[in-house]
Amino acid sequence: MRKLETCFSPALFEADFHSDSIVVIIDVLRASSAICTAFANGASSIIPVAEIEEARMYKSKGYLVAAERDGFTLDFADFGNSPFNFTKEKVAGRTIVYSTTNGTSIINLTRSAHMTVIGSFLNIGTLNKWLINQDRNVLLVCAGWKNRFNLEDTVCAGAIAHALMKSKDFVTVCDSTHAAIDLWKLASPDLHGYIEKAAQRSRLRDKNLDDCIEFCLTPDFTDKIPVMKNGVLVAV
Amino acid sequence: MRKLETCFSPALFEADFHSDSIVVIIDVLRASSAICTAFANGASSIIPVAEIEEARMYKSKGYLVAAERDGFTLDFADFGNSPFNFTKEKVAGRTIVYSTTNGTSIINLTRSAHMTVIGSFLNIGTLNKWLINQDRNVLLVCAGWKNRFNLEDTVCAGAIAHALMKSKDFVTVCDSTHAAIDLWKLASPDLHGYIEKAAQRSRLRDKNLDDCIEFCLTPDFTDKIPVMKNGVLVAV
Repeated sequence: MRKLETCFSPALFEADFHSDSIVVIIDVLRASSAICTAFANGASSIIPVAEIEEARMYKSKGYLVAAERDGFTLDFADFGNSPFNFTKEKVAGRTIVYSTTNGTSIINLTRSAHMTVIGSFLNIGTLNKWLINQDRNVLLVCAGWKNRFNLEDTVCAGAIAHALMKSKDFVTVCDSTHAAIDLWKLASPDLHGYIEKAAQRSRLRDKNLDDCIEFCLTPDFTDKIPVMKNGVLVAV
Repeated sequence: MRKLETCFSPALFEADFHSDSIVVIIDVLRASSAICTAFANGASSIIPVAEIEEARMYKSKGYLVAAERDGFTLDFADFGNSPFNFTKEKVAGRTIVYSTTNGTSIINLTRSAHMTVIGSFLNIGTLNKWLINQDRNVLLVCAGWKNRFNLEDTVCAGAIAHALMKSKDFVTVCDSTHAAIDLWKLASPDLHGYIEKAAQRSRLRDKNLDDCIEFCLTPDFTDKIPVMKNGVLVAV
């Protein structure tokens, strides 16, 4: 039996315990949803960078750059973090350099794991089947917000965990996983309604950036699974 | 309106945001339950110490010492962490030096707050009324287990948060608080049954230390609220 665990914040990630695991990074609003959308629309690869200056350097070399902090597009970037920016017209066949408030630093954090993949509601069905078919322990990492627990990543982790536990291939003695599954069961009959109370939902509303929330909560928009290979995300 | 927030692990505690708050430390299995029991049974004060050597030094000076690591009583200590050790016969009128795996280090961590108090199911009714009557923001800190999220502290935090929000004196934009309240509502019809899946429940069973779980989940055993004053816990 394989182990399934969940980590509610990058600050709680324990690298030593997960060197043989597949790590799933979840940042529903909005980084992991944007990354899944980019691959759905034909992006060839995404280079996640943690620092603004690194993103700026790539821009000066001619790369397409998506970069934001606290929801706002950086002045030198081509666009920001909304999945609606990653259209076929802009991204098909392109390599995108990507830097966000939370999402990219956590990707770097988990380079010590066996493999890092990107999860969201947008690719959840394909991701679940793929995770069940790998012969690996799985750790679900919620990106959260500035290291804080958040509801939207937790219920997405719970949805994945619920499917993996139903497969009977996994066991868990992880309280975070139990809590995530329970919150998913509570939220799933009316996911949009449940996410109304999430702090990030209010933050995006306050900045007029909430137009993408319904999309980000849509299951199975794509069958692409973004996977980190040598510091670059590609689709499987 | 006062702010109510919840922190699921000492590793997520943000000292800068809580210098004016009352911090409630929750370590249901078993430190905060044991501390509440000690005061219920007449202990005059408790000196929490983080390091084993400090506890040993106090013992050599003649203090009554409760000290454990990973559930096991340290060889020099008078007794360990089970609330059943803190009987009237042993603790009435005494000062106890106390060191546990999680509980005491978190107490030291929160010395930057306006006030630190100890919460558990055992004193929950009195604690809720007292918190509502103070004119302060409240932060509920779950001690967790070695910095991990745990279910028993979370549902206790949820029970406190639920009562505070019902008072209409508090607002929250904290996802952890919403999740804790939701998990409390889910767990409360059968709290013992819900805690069966908690990792700490299994750990205590494996060590034959689970005899106190039913007691630790009992509401309103005492009306004492342990409060930290100058590095020492006393009851109000």
